Amino acid sequence: MSRYWSRIVHSLTPYVPGEQPKISKLIKLNTNENPYGPSPKVLEAIRAEVTDSLRLYPDPNSDQLRQAIADNFEIEREQVFVGNGSDEVLAHIFQALFKHDQPLLFPDITYSFYPVYCGLYEIAYREIALRDDFSIHIDDYFQSNGGIIFPNPNAPTGRLLVLSEIERLLQKNTDSVVVVDEAYVDFGGDSAVGLINHYPNLLVTQTVSKSRSLAGLRVGYAMGQSELIEALVRVKDSFNSYPLDRLAIAGASAAFADVDYFKQTCHRVISSREALITDLEGLGFNIIPSAANFIFAAPSNISAQQLADALREHGIIIRYFNKPRIDNFLRITIGTDDENRSLVQALKSIL
Amino acid sequence: MSRYWSRIVHSLTPYVPGEQPKISKLIKLNTNENPYGPSPKVLEAIRAEVTDSLRLYPDPNSDQLRQAIADNFEIEREQVFVGNGSDEVLAHIFQALFKHDQPLLFPDITYSFYPVYCGLYEIAYREIALRDDFSIHIDDYFQSNGGIIFPNPNAPTGRLLVLSEIERLLQKNTDSVVVVDEAYVDFGGDSAVGLINHYPNLLVTQTVSKSRSLAGLRVGYAMGQSELIEALVRVKDSFNSYPLDRLAIAGASAAFADVDYFKQTCHRVISSREALITDLEGLGFNIIPSAANFIFAAPSNISAQQLADALREHGIIIRYFNKPRIDNFLRITIGTDDENRSLVQALKSIL
Repeated sequence: MSRYWSRIVHSLTPYVPGEQPKISKLIKLNTNENPYGPSPKVLEAIRAEVTDSLRLYPDPNSDQLRQAIADNFEIEREQVFVGNGSDEVLAHIFQALFKHDQPLLFPDITYSFYPVYCGLYEIAYREIALRDDFSIHIDDYFQSNGGIIFPNPNAPTGRLLVLSEIERLLQKNTDSVVVVDEAYVDFGGDSAVGLINHYPNLLVTQTVSKSRSLAGLRVGYAMGQSELIEALVRVKDSFNSYPLDRLAIAGASAAFADVDYFKQTCHRVISSREALITDLEGLGFNIIPSAANFIFAAPSNISAQQLADALREHGIIIRYFNKPRIDNFLRITIGTDDENRSLVQALKSIL
Repeated sequence: MSRYWSRIVHSLTPYVPGEQPKISKLIKLNTNENPYGPSPKVLEAIRAEVTDSLRLYPDPNSDQLRQAIADNFEIEREQVFVGNGSDEVLAHIFQALFKHDQPLLFPDITYSFYPVYCGLYEIAYREIALRDDFSIHIDDYFQSNGGIIFPNPNAPTGRLLVLSEIERLLQKNTDSVVVVDEAYVDFGGDSAVGLINHYPNLLVTQTVSKSRSLAGLRVGYAMGQSELIEALVRVKDSFNSYPLDRLAIAGASAAFADVDYFKQTCHRVISSREALITDLEGLGFNIIPSAANFIFAAPSNISAQQLADALREHGIIIRYFNKPRIDNFLRITIGTDDENRSLVQALKSIL
């Protein structure tokens, strides 16, 4: 508390990201990073930019990257907005498109940054309870609102909503913006990006942090009709002209060019996930069906928090949320097969 | 205009950055970049980070970089805040520290992003006219306010305010935050950072974009007592947990380690500036005394806009602001001696 602070600062409850340990021998299954590094072509493209040209500002519009994304999804460059990680993109979305008289709607169990943004921009919101199986039911969102957002697959549950349900929502909900946050969609879902030309109020966000193995580079993006993109550009150009540095533009652009590597990596993660689910079910875990690069798993005969602590003793970190309805679950990122085996061994020794 | 936009979006007047031309044969003296590349040690440090570790999130607190900055200025790490370019740092400052009942004060001729931030966060402000010689007079700021900000040296004038005047302001103005924006201070001014331990309401911002030749990397920082830094951290952690990517953290940290290179580069730019001033005064320009890596110069016998257009025909771009009081001036970034010679030749041929 300080008399120098703006009023809003006193009321903020900031987001707490998963731990980034400074010792490297831990098996790190806590922040949904990809167990495989980025494409060698990405590293090459970044290296080619590590020159004296770093003295120059980057392209404020990141046209090269926006074009690479547009080409990948067969949309127009003007339908793409890029930012410094999808967290920044989401922040701009909340400020630019979600501040209305009616409350924003999102699930009660979801990405815990959403209510934080609402605090920062003083946006009214209403949490819509997931059903008991942690599924989103679209009918629950058929009510007056100033916007709707949910991840698909949802986080931290991993549970997928099929595209036809999203389209049913868009057909009924035409007066406010619907954001589908697809951070994890490449691990088992279908993107809603194919719907943007049909629904002027649809915005789809993605990131290179997960399926493209570039969490360390900070690049996220939103796709939608130019009317929505323009709102984001106006906010971005009133906040920071150059959100993406030269290396991020080069690396992320190259990531979209190497489609084969991307597909192979996603496939490996999906295979490992299915194997891990089988192993954990054998150990008595209740696991929510996952279309993500993580699973949401409830142990039997031990509390989730106890188990998280015990795993840490074994050098393995996973994510535990001390929140109603999910405090008996652990969110476990899919690692390499070796890492997953170590996890299963540790669980066997603990349980 | 769109019914989907939040109210604030309709009223924004975004900042327009200087042109980043996509053809490289232009002599680019328009956005105050350093004519010399970053230290070779910076490039080396970045290259060492271009590995599979890019799959992992960066340190959300950028501790390595904050420590490097703290060591450089002989302050504590907790007195340093870092962001994705000083534009992002300034945006957080406006939201976290400048939104009060009384208006924010800044010069009428200054960094044109300041009123844009005020628009984004709905902050009342009052512009204080520079004196006729474009100098800031501290006495003009002795009035009720919700904060004070100015660049030192000022932009786009390049004119410096001496440190004793800043201290006189701080002695009198104790109820609101004073931000000294030192983007250009290394080219001829004394930093106010030595005052932060004496004045709890002082915040000093700097950037690696200018004197450390890293505009392409997007790293800025603020230094002040931990009470002010905490406000910025709270806003940052409600906006984007990981504003700096792994490469930016590595490169900027290395830039602070290579003090010799930094000093040499600054010295070269200052020498070139003094030589260019002599040449331009010989051509009849009226030049505001500059402590920056640019000069603010009014031509005689030709309008500034005409001259800007004519220089572009010669393949040289400089910055012209079509604004009251300064529309007969050009802001010219100091280039290499070769570039400056080309500029002088072109001017001779035009005038």
